[in-house]
Amino acid sequence: MTPQQTRLLDALATLLPARAIVTDRDLIAPWETDWRGRWHGVSPILLEPGSVAEVQAIVAAAARECVPLVAQGGNTSMVGGATPPASGEGVILSLRRLNRIRSVDPDAGLAIAEAGVILADLHAAAADHGRRFPLTLGSRGSATIGGLVSTNAGGTQVLRWGTMRGLVAGVEAVLADGSLYEGLAALKKDNRGYDLNQLLIGAEGTLGIVTAATLRLAPAIHARTVAWIGLATPDAALRLLRRFEAAGNAVESFELLPDESLKAVLTHIPDTRAPLAGEHPWHVLVEAVSSDPAAPAPAAFVERVLETALADGIVSDATIAASETQAEAFWRIRDSISDAERATGPAAQHDISVPVEAMPRFLIEAAAACDARFPGTRASGFGHLGDGNVHFHVRAPAGADRAQWLAEEAPGVTRFVDDLVVAAGGSISAEHGIGQMKLHELERLSPPPRMAALRAIKRALDPAGIFNPGKLVALAPGGAGE
Amino acid sequence: MTPQQTRLLDALATLLPARAIVTDRDLIAPWETDWRGRWHGVSPILLEPGSVAEVQAIVAAAARECVPLVAQGGNTSMVGGATPPASGEGVILSLRRLNRIRSVDPDAGLAIAEAGVILADLHAAAADHGRRFPLTLGSRGSATIGGLVSTNAGGTQVLRWGTMRGLVAGVEAVLADGSLYEGLAALKKDNRGYDLNQLLIGAEGTLGIVTAATLRLAPAIHARTVAWIGLATPDAALRLLRRFEAAGNAVESFELLPDESLKAVLTHIPDTRAPLAGEHPWHVLVEAVSSDPAAPAPAAFVERVLETALADGIVSDATIAASETQAEAFWRIRDSISDAERATGPAAQHDISVPVEAMPRFLIEAAAACDARFPGTRASGFGHLGDGNVHFHVRAPAGADRAQWLAEEAPGVTRFVDDLVVAAGGSISAEHGIGQMKLHELERLSPPPRMAALRAIKRALDPAGIFNPGKLVALAPGGAGE
Repeated sequence: MTPQQTRLLDALATLLPARAIVTDRDLIAPWETDWRGRWHGVSPILLEPGSVAEVQAIVAAAARECVPLVAQGGNTSMVGGATPPASGEGVILSLRRLNRIRSVDPDAGLAIAEAGVILADLHAAAADHGRRFPLTLGSRGSATIGGLVSTNAGGTQVLRWGTMRGLVAGVEAVLADGSLYEGLAALKKDNRGYDLNQLLIGAEGTLGIVTAATLRLAPAIHARTVAWIGLATPDAALRLLRRFEAAGNAVESFELLPDESLKAVLTHIPDTRAPLAGEHPWHVLVEAVSSDPAAPAPAAFVERVLETALADGIVSDATIAASETQAEAFWRIRDSISDAERATGPAAQHDISVPVEAMPRFLIEAAAACDARFPGTRASGFGHLGDGNVHFHVRAPAGADRAQWLAEEAPGVTRFVDDLVVAAGGSISAEHGIGQMKLHELERLSPPPRMAALRAIKRALDPAGIFNPGKLVALAPGGAGE
Repeated sequence: MTPQQTRLLDALATLLPARAIVTDRDLIAPWETDWRGRWHGVSPILLEPGSVAEVQAIVAAAARECVPLVAQGGNTSMVGGATPPASGEGVILSLRRLNRIRSVDPDAGLAIAEAGVILADLHAAAADHGRRFPLTLGSRGSATIGGLVSTNAGGTQVLRWGTMRGLVAGVEAVLADGSLYEGLAALKKDNRGYDLNQLLIGAEGTLGIVTAATLRLAPAIHARTVAWIGLATPDAALRLLRRFEAAGNAVESFELLPDESLKAVLTHIPDTRAPLAGEHPWHVLVEAVSSDPAAPAPAAFVERVLETALADGIVSDATIAASETQAEAFWRIRDSISDAERATGPAAQHDISVPVEAMPRFLIEAAAACDARFPGTRASGFGHLGDGNVHFHVRAPAGADRAQWLAEEAPGVTRFVDDLVVAAGGSISAEHGIGQMKLHELERLSPPPRMAALRAIKRALDPAGIFNPGKLVALAPGGAGE
């Protein structure tokens, strides 16, 4: 424990209940490593406040003693964003006990949830009121609202509902001096200067500690239709997407995958089978939903669009899931791609986005460029075509040693892919954030005016550098310098 | 001209074409006063750059000489936001010559427009491509894209499409050191740290000079239905709104007005008549649209909702415009309220918002509180119920001298109304911004943590205080101090 941490502990002992301060190594250890075991840190103390006032007391004391605070929710970051520094000078501030759903207003379509509320619990609470919170992802059983806000999380319904940025109507956060920013009021119009809510969304805990958020709810789903479509090119997929969009706003998911992803799933995941007969170079999974019992079922809508697309040669073949079981089977293929590819060998994985219109060309050209540049590797992308966001994976040559290839070859592959993304006007982090994993690539690839602005904002709102140092934006050791 | 301005002029003379520098008093004068003639300033020089590079040269030179720059588009601010300081030490930087629509992509639903593009011209360009830009307001013939972005403008379609914040997909801006922030790429997902686009939207030219924006386009309107509805209370209006929302997303405007607003229009505006027979304490104007020729007309949808609302006693009477002419006549009533009220005498006007659910109660209780506190005055609100945003006007007692009442009584009325708004969890500026008009009320009514954060951001991104000083956020004279 550093002298600063000892002083912080002494100060907090008089301010917080014993329950809020954990020093038992065995209780702390699980939270010092991220869920995938890729990032390791040291936090001699684990703080678990039970109220917003306790968070304020912690931040004020940490600011006085200059002890870095690493906000943590479900510890499901993909980029090491919630893992404490390896130096041991930081402290994990867990928001998990701040887990009250303060209100659900189904008429207004709003809920106020504290930072530690688990996403699945919010889903359940909304459902209890005949509503839904239209954002979900694989880690919904452990990811928390605070983390979802702080990483501007995405998921599979972004096409219609947007990322967290589109679903957050208000934010409450503790600022660097321990003061409370109260921005929970859900105002549809509010032009009182710089939008602090927007600044805190996606800030990865580097500007303040999000303690609660006001979230928009959507109507519950009355009926859904899931279809599997075979087509020749990503460009055909984009043309199909535009037809669905022109016909209405019922489509919530539009997922694209190359045939090799499907083949990997069929090979490695038990009890899966191809939705369509015949071979298709590319596949699309579409989900359309309806909330209004009085409205026509989405199946008719999907059928109508697919029929004309088939007639016009955009689509080669298509099938609509005949049951919920079949719909789940289609989704299982999509959701198993990462597991299936893992079984085939190591890969350099990239969560990237480009403008939607540019994605078909990017998928073809970037994969070809990778294959040419790194002989023996095999590149392809799959995912949220409608969001211009794919998971672009470059798989190691057959027989490569996993650890060695990931350590020695993958970083060079990643720099090559990131360069292609930037050249296409895209983002090297579509939905996972920067954390510590992409810190240097962000630095390398951002135009200097943008990086200077990020640093200026960080210094302005966290002058002592106590919020999640070493994540997102690199300042010099000590925090406040360049 | 100050010595700093003289040096700036000398420096720019070698950097810019003559066309970009105006010193003729007659040419400058119209831009030194806002369009309503309420705010007056002095700008010995008017800069009219014709390219982004020229804007960069101006900002860099102004930063060196510490000359404040007041960005100006159509000069239609409602809060004195684009009027130069009265001291004469500032310079107007007009973006009007930066008026190129760089691209329109109807398939992607995106357009890139430079800051000086007039809103009506963007409307026309979108229409030429079978699309529309779904934001409009009274000053569309002069308001510019840069101003609309910088004030996060609203209008009458916010209910469905949001304010500019929801319609801006990218921003390009010149930062305080003259560097260019290039954020035009329309990425649906981008988690590379703090969202600078969001920070520049609504910043009123105090953090940078917006030079262009990427804007989302919506499908063109195929058919519209406009209805006029009489009802007993604002609460009934809210319940009607919720029914429309539950039935679909066709409603783009939902405007509420008290009977006295209708009466004022019928009295003072020629060729207007009441849409409904009989007396109704409150009125709603609804517009629903359809973009899909294959979809059912919105009239059937509006009829269906109104029929059940009539049967359930939510609505007292309703009529659907039988023609475009009648639809225009309904809208003319709504759009004439401000003119009609002006004819009845002076009023203290407030552009305010509260959470939508709180608006019915606010309209009744705030009006009663004003009437009681200021005997002889008469308060009422009208406007965008669906956005939680009304124009809350307190009219002077009969016979009051306009200039005297506005100078001596109105400020106290405004402070009283603003206190009520804050107590209701609302915003003292819903869509007009802060400018110079609301600077002191923002200061008086904002919690200190919020004001401290706004100041820190301003200082971080505009350390020399050259961008629109004296607007939005008050720093000490000279700019950089507290």
